[in-house]
Amino acid sequence: MSASSDSPVVKALVFDVFGTVVDWRSSLIADFTQWGAGRGIEADWAGLVDAWRAAYMPSMDEVRKHPERGYLALDTLHRQSLERLVTQFAITGLNDDDLAYMTLGWHRLKPWADSVSGLTRLKTKFVIGTLSNGNVALLTNMAKQAGLPWDLVLSAELFAHYKPDREVYLGAARLLGLAPEQVMMVAAHNNDLKAAQDLGLKTAFVPRPTEYGPLQKKDFKADGNWDVVATDFNDLAARLGS
Amino acid sequence: MSASSDSPVVKALVFDVFGTVVDWRSSLIADFTQWGAGRGIEADWAGLVDAWRAAYMPSMDEVRKHPERGYLALDTLHRQSLERLVTQFAITGLNDDDLAYMTLGWHRLKPWADSVSGLTRLKTKFVIGTLSNGNVALLTNMAKQAGLPWDLVLSAELFAHYKPDREVYLGAARLLGLAPEQVMMVAAHNNDLKAAQDLGLKTAFVPRPTEYGPLQKKDFKADGNWDVVATDFNDLAARLGS
Repeated sequence: MSASSDSPVVKALVFDVFGTVVDWRSSLIADFTQWGAGRGIEADWAGLVDAWRAAYMPSMDEVRKHPERGYLALDTLHRQSLERLVTQFAITGLNDDDLAYMTLGWHRLKPWADSVSGLTRLKTKFVIGTLSNGNVALLTNMAKQAGLPWDLVLSAELFAHYKPDREVYLGAARLLGLAPEQVMMVAAHNNDLKAAQDLGLKTAFVPRPTEYGPLQKKDFKADGNWDVVATDFNDLAARLGS
Repeated sequence: MSASSDSPVVKALVFDVFGTVVDWRSSLIADFTQWGAGRGIEADWAGLVDAWRAAYMPSMDEVRKHPERGYLALDTLHRQSLERLVTQFAITGLNDDDLAYMTLGWHRLKPWADSVSGLTRLKTKFVIGTLSNGNVALLTNMAKQAGLPWDLVLSAELFAHYKPDREVYLGAARLLGLAPEQVMMVAAHNNDLKAAQDLGLKTAFVPRPTEYGPLQKKDFKADGNWDVVATDFNDLAARLGS
C-alpha cells in the first residue's frame, strides 16, 4: 500500500457495481424464486442466473468485435442472453412482460451489507460515482431502490465502450474534470483494477469472495499492487480518512 | 395545465440549472466581491458577471457553427470569455490561478431558497437529474457544495451538443430508458421548455424573475402551454403529488 493512497490528490472514487457494490447472484436468485412461485413457474433459477452472468463477458465481446452494429447497452445484452437461456433451461410460459421483468431484475439488485454505510462515509470526503458496464438507467434505478448515495452515475454506456476498454476509465476522468491519478477505481475484480492502474488511475480492492457463490474461482484476494486493499466499504472509508 | 401533468406516466424530472436551480448572478457577484477585496482587486464585478453571462449564448453558437473544432465544454467556453472580458473591463493583476478560481465560480453557485427542499420532496417520487449546458464536473461539484440531491447528473456535454439542440433532450430520455413523454423538463426559461415540448417531453415552468437582476427582460411568466406552472420547487412538488 503506497503512501499516496489517502493523499488529497484523489478527489473522486468510482466504483465497479456488479459484485463490488451489489450482490447480483443472491439478489436475482431470491427475486426469481419468489416471483416464479407467484407465477407458478418452476425452474433452476440459480442455474439460470449463473448462466446469465456467464454470458456477460461474451456478449460484451460481441459488441467490441462488431462496432459496425453500434453500441448495445447492457439491458439489451441481458435481454438477448435471457431469450436464449430460457429456451436452454426449458423455462416455458414466459410472455414479453415476464422477460422484461426478469431483465429489469438487474435494476433491483441488493447492496452488500456494508455498501450504503460505507458509501455514505466516503461521500463526505470524495465525489463518489459508479463506473460500471451497467447502462445509465439500470444504475440510476438500482441506486434509487437500494439507497446508494452516488454523486453521479457514470457508465460504460456514456463512452459507447465496455470495461476494460480504456475509453471508459479515461472518459470518466475527463468528465470529472480530473487527471487519472486523481480518480480511484474501487472494485472486487483484479482485472478491472489492472486496466485502471495501467491508465494512471489509483486503485482500491475490496474482496467479495461470495459473489459467484460456489462457482467463485478468483478474486478471493488482491493480486496486484493496488493503492488500497480494504475488507469492506467501511474499512475503505477508514483507510481513506473519511 | 393538462390532466396529464401529475399522471404516473412521468417517471423522471430533468432540470435546467443556471437560473432555474441556482442564482448564478447574485452568487458570482458576491463571490468575486469578497474574493476581490481579499486580493486587493477592485472591479465592476456586477458588470463583468452580466457581460460573462451575455457571452454564454454566442459562445455556444460558435460550437454549433464549427463542429470541425470539436465540442468544447462549458468550463472552456467560460474561460475563453473571461479572458476577453477581464481585458475589456480593465481588470489587471490576475494570474492563471485567479482566472481558474473565477471560472470555477460557476461550480460554486448557490441554490434559490426553495431548491434543496423542493428537490428533496420531488426525489421521493421521481428520478431527478440535471439537464444543463454546464459540464458534468461543474454540475457535480455544484451539487456537492450546494447539497443538491440529484439522482444523476445529465449534461449537454454527454451528447456533445448544447441545448436547445434536440440531441440533448432526446439523449436524456434515451439514457433514462424512458420515452420522451415520461420525462418532464423543468426550467425558468420558456425557450428551453419549447424545445423540450416540441420533442415530446412534458414541461414545468418555475419563474425566477430576479435571475438577471435589473437586466431581466423575459421569462417573468409562462408564455407557452406548459404541463405545469409552479411558483417554486416546493409548489412544483405539491402539484406533482410529492
